[in-house]
Amino acid sequence: MKVAIVGATGYGGVELIRLLYHHPHIDEISVFSSSQEGKSMVDNYSHFIEIVDLTLEKIDAERLKTFDAVFFSTPPGVSSEWTEKIAGETKVIDLSGDLRLKDGDVYEKWYGRESASEALLTQAVYGLSEWHEEEIKHTSILSNPGCYPTAALLGLAPLVQANAIDTNHIIIDAKSGTTGAGRSLSPITHFSEMNDNFKIYKVNEHKHTPEIEQQLMAWGEKELTITFTPHLVPMTRGIMATMYAPVQDGWTKEQIKALYEKAYAHKPFVRLRGEGAFPFTKEVYGTNYCDIGWSIDDRTNRITIVSVIDNLVKGASGQAIQNMNFMFGFEETAGLNMVPVYP
Amino acid sequence: MKVAIVGATGYGGVELIRLLYHHPHIDEISVFSSSQEGKSMVDNYSHFIEIVDLTLEKIDAERLKTFDAVFFSTPPGVSSEWTEKIAGETKVIDLSGDLRLKDGDVYEKWYGRESASEALLTQAVYGLSEWHEEEIKHTSILSNPGCYPTAALLGLAPLVQANAIDTNHIIIDAKSGTTGAGRSLSPITHFSEMNDNFKIYKVNEHKHTPEIEQQLMAWGEKELTITFTPHLVPMTRGIMATMYAPVQDGWTKEQIKALYEKAYAHKPFVRLRGEGAFPFTKEVYGTNYCDIGWSIDDRTNRITIVSVIDNLVKGASGQAIQNMNFMFGFEETAGLNMVPVYP
Amino acid sequence: MKVAIVGATGYGGVELIRLLYHHPHIDEISVFSSSQEGKSMVDNYSHFIEIVDLTLEKIDAERLKTFDAVFFSTPPGVSSEWTEKIAGETKVIDLSGDLRLKDGDVYEKWYGRESASEALLTQAVYGLSEWHEEEIKHTSILSNPGCYPTAALLGLAPLVQANAIDTNHIIIDAKSGTTGAGRSLSPITHFSEMNDNFKIYKVNEHKHTPEIEQQLMAWGEKELTITFTPHLVPMTRGIMATMYAPVQDGWTKEQIKALYEKAYAHKPFVRLRGEGAFPFTKEVYGTNYCDIGWSIDDRTNRITIVSVIDNLVKGASGQAIQNMNFMFGFEETAGLNMVPVYP
Amino acid sequence: MKVAIVGATGYGGVELIRLLYHHPHIDEISVFSSSQEGKSMVDNYSHFIEIVDLTLEKIDAERLKTFDAVFFSTPPGVSSEWTEKIAGETKVIDLSGDLRLKDGDVYEKWYGRESASEALLTQAVYGLSEWHEEEIKHTSILSNPGCYPTAALLGLAPLVQANAIDTNHIIIDAKSGTTGAGRSLSPITHFSEMNDNFKIYKVNEHKHTPEIEQQLMAWGEKELTITFTPHLVPMTRGIMATMYAPVQDGWTKEQIKALYEKAYAHKPFVRLRGEGAFPFTKEVYGTNYCDIGWSIDDRTNRITIVSVIDNLVKGASGQAIQNMNFMFGFEETAGLNMVPVYP
Repeated sequence: MKVAIVGATGYGGVELIRLLYHHPHIDEISVFSSSQEGKSMVDNYSHFIEIVDLTLEKIDAERLKTFDAVFFSTPPGVSSEWTEKIAGETKVIDLSGDLRLKDGDVYEKWYGRESASEALLTQAVYGLSEWHEEEIKHTSILSNPGCYPTAALLGLAPLVQANAIDTNHIIIDAKSGTTGAGRSLSPITHFSEMNDNFKIYKVNEHKHTPEIEQQLMAWGEKELTITFTPHLVPMTRGIMATMYAPVQDGWTKEQIKALYEKAYAHKPFVRLRGEGAFPFTKEVYGTNYCDIGWSIDDRTNRITIVSVIDNLVKGASGQAIQNMNFMFGFEETAGLNMVPVYP
Repeated sequence: MKVAIVGATGYGGVELIRLLYHHPHIDEISVFSSSQEGKSMVDNYSHFIEIVDLTLEKIDAERLKTFDAVFFSTPPGVSSEWTEKIAGETKVIDLSGDLRLKDGDVYEKWYGRESASEALLTQAVYGLSEWHEEEIKHTSILSNPGCYPTAALLGLAPLVQANAIDTNHIIIDAKSGTTGAGRSLSPITHFSEMNDNFKIYKVNEHKHTPEIEQQLMAWGEKELTITFTPHLVPMTRGIMATMYAPVQDGWTKEQIKALYEKAYAHKPFVRLRGEGAFPFTKEVYGTNYCDIGWSIDDRTNRITIVSVIDNLVKGASGQAIQNMNFMFGFEETAGLNMVPVYP
Repeated sequence: MKVAIVGATGYGGVELIRLLYHHPHIDEISVFSSSQEGKSMVDNYSHFIEIVDLTLEKIDAERLKTFDAVFFSTPPGVSSEWTEKIAGETKVIDLSGDLRLKDGDVYEKWYGRESASEALLTQAVYGLSEWHEEEIKHTSILSNPGCYPTAALLGLAPLVQANAIDTNHIIIDAKSGTTGAGRSLSPITHFSEMNDNFKIYKVNEHKHTPEIEQQLMAWGEKELTITFTPHLVPMTRGIMATMYAPVQDGWTKEQIKALYEKAYAHKPFVRLRGEGAFPFTKEVYGTNYCDIGWSIDDRTNRITIVSVIDNLVKGASGQAIQNMNFMFGFEETAGLNMVPVYP
Repeated sequence: MKVAIVGATGYGGVELIRLLYHHPHIDEISVFSSSQEGKSMVDNYSHFIEIVDLTLEKIDAERLKTFDAVFFSTPPGVSSEWTEKIAGETKVIDLSGDLRLKDGDVYEKWYGRESASEALLTQAVYGLSEWHEEEIKHTSILSNPGCYPTAALLGLAPLVQANAIDTNHIIIDAKSGTTGAGRSLSPITHFSEMNDNFKIYKVNEHKHTPEIEQQLMAWGEKELTITFTPHLVPMTRGIMATMYAPVQDGWTKEQIKALYEKAYAHKPFVRLRGEGAFPFTKEVYGTNYCDIGWSIDDRTNRITIVSVIDNLVKGASGQAIQNMNFMFGFEETAGLNMVPVYP
């Protein structure tokens, strides 16, 4: 099987290469870039030397159609443009935010730019692997979830679906390593000012807010707004989402536990820590796992849910491959069986 | 003026020495330790070489009475024991948690040990400098606030006092550098497993929870319980408290802003960033400042408040000196006029 | 094939598990510990949850003999004791320093304890994979090199063997991440005092000094002493050895380059960066690679050689598996084909 | 006394402000920038809010002449240009490299640009405070040493002056925090790729090489070339220089020790750790100290010298103020009496 990666020089693309490189069903990888045609991946990333021998090609629709799957790990607007041109001829897996929001108006409000066509938005399946397996298996246009939404939604899903929490009071306090901010240089991620520092950003303004809401509303079958706050941790990889909501009357700790266990019993990449046990971000480093713990406070009747992922793997490239596995009928875990790099 | 530091070998004690060393009204510092009598501070901390020439003495009540002020930066149970013996003969500034909770039962529930005597608890003033100046000026037993409560309370005070937020739904998501966990060795703070890692701990079980609640109830004049979650950031110093609450009906953004501005207009160590502007922890590094920003979300009608401090300064030793300044009639900022060490 | 890991709860053991877990020829792993019999690996390392289900067994000679290979990742003195009991019945791969120094007196001087028996020392092969392939293939007792010696020796080998540098003036200035210091708690590696700090230790006293000298003398066929200085970097993994020596008269840059290229042309884990190009530690993160660059200074006629490895992989467990591959006739790269985790 | 800082928005300028802010003899600070006229320091650095209220002015010779002293913390070429215009009218303290190398040809070779005029180079005093106090006191143009040279020269001075080491074999292996690379954005100091990474750069090509050589030759009274290698440590501040040289015949450990003690007996900012005791970078954090330790190896007859500084203080702004103190007849330590910020 042959795959293309468009936008291969960003961290998402680089992680796709790392993971696909040992995927049992991938025979050939090609890489594309809008600006670096003719340069090699090694020119951009010395760690690939003697391992990854790939030269960046110009993005071209006819060429892209020759692949079994095309991954887009690109800035806003790129994947929707090219997907229009190649849809139907190849399978598309889009790691950008272009196709995540089904309502074009919401997209335009939060992204500040024109949305993809309604046809494309309708066709694209939002691929939260653990919850949308069937739709993913039958689509040829896959919109891969954002990193924060993946961590948040996997932690909240069983509770919202069962109406076990009051969705009017959901708070998501999320913390990410700096790779979430990409490779573009910025004073915010300049080492001298990010090291030994903890930052908050885009309070009440982050694009992942409506993405989380859209899915929670689909599950909860009612309108809601959440409060979502992203922070930057002085570390390279990892997201922790700490989430809060009031438990609905009548729900016991045992019932909550049962909800989680039922939801994820057969999901290979979700590891439940149980009530009162909490994961740390490094415990999923370099892997596709999402680890979840929670605590219900008798004093406040509020539940605190903690969910951790590696933002570049389960939060981006790993989940994209998990989705590719579904789309092509491979085993869900193909190419993703990794032990965390710890410490 | 002569001061004693009991428990001088912990980070709180070391920071007291750093700050007192240049305090204009301190002539002499003596240091005490329960276990290291006869050793010098330099034996414990090489960075003091040729600057701080202090030898640790055995803790002795008669000796402690000879000082103008005695700082306790000690594990649970130590300061309450010794304060009983020296109260009335000298002024006590207690950085431990022994005298913070006015209700002995609450102390025993959260600390899992016997509380100080009721007499002592009654006498001790909880010294959140910006809000308790008058009581502090007239006490000889000062209980210095915890690090997390300092950050949280300074951020919430104007809103709770004015009843501008719904105190039934206060969430405090706090993040601290590792010095908050002290110098005792632990696998949690072993560099190899704390570096590039983000941790959560004591969910719904941290001792600072009732301390925050006690003060909020005093201000709000009604019962409440909060949700408080501490996290460990891979950095040395700094706390950020990200706090959430619904805004009460009728409050405008302008009114909220006015509350903050009125509250802190004449407080030299609180720096308001304003609505939509947020501080990072490193911006107060090494100083006694508490920087506060906030955002009110029209969609959710919820306010997000962000408060940062240096946990060892405003969260411990700096505030203790600020309180000492009040207790002895010095200028509030004496010895604490520092520019943040940045970057 | 069945393997045992003795001392599985240290970082070396944990990394062996991570790597062996996907080794194509390993069917079964058992773990042994002198102090934690009956506990599971997950009790020690939460990141193994749902992946590694191994219970620690008591160390027992008869039991160890039933394995095809036994890895020792143990403190000084343990592997030599047990190897005496099981030698001949199974193959031993020793990651500790017990069997590295051929001269018992030198061992006793640097390690401050009794050396292994002369019989054992004679029998054990020092397994620097790239240079001792033939001996490794024919031994059943393998002494795996230390982390610093691996980085240093791979960088110096071509030059010393060809007598291209003056071995009377070799300086090795080495820098390591903190995992090299293991999991034992120490004030040196307490996060609060290691973060944002750079440390030097055991100047002229590190045990790896005679190990490096022994091999250089074997190659250079003459007596020599080196200066070796280890440092601790505030990072988790990685070693950089920066090495200095005068170039012998008559050697040109082209000849030096040819020496390196000839030496490592067919070595899959050594990646030459060439003259004037230098690797960073993270570029080999999580892998068995050793990357080497160098610069010859016309002004001083001195060569600077830079060699980087991941101390837990090529510097310990990865090289141990590379050696196992040789000992059992597997492909050299079996189980070790990994792309660096970057960033 | 009134001072100007030209190039105030870089880290050197910001650190000058931090230190001068509490200097007992400074009444007024003005700041200048070539590109940010009219912006305030707070626009550039939020941590200055409510403390430092300074607006950047356009650089103007007539205006600069009105100050008692002008600090230049500027890129190559700027200070030499402006110093030509204001020399004689005010005192200049230049933190850039423009005036450090006395030989214009050497400057042009290493800096790749035209040197300052010979008149200016002749007039400027190279101000290594501990060694050039007399010249500094009588100059009005002070060239402040580079960060690496400061650490290296203070460690080597007593040995080279006494001819106690063989200057043909001096190796300086230096490690710096990232602030040494300034505030300009670069992939090298992007947090995601600098964190958990150790880097080497400009091997045999760093501009500080001839600066160190120039001073060593002045002391040793003979030609020499050194090998100097800079590295980047994933930390914010601090330099450690690890230095190597053969001890000349006949020198005992006691004599070496005596050399150091004599040299620095009355130098308030040099703290000798003695033989076999070594400083860590964080032990001088935020201060003007230079801590020095050393070890003489009987096996190799080589000395290893370790010198640490805070690159922004003793390596730049602190030493500049120490020199200003000399130039204006103030106490050497005025404004520089600080306890290290530790941990």
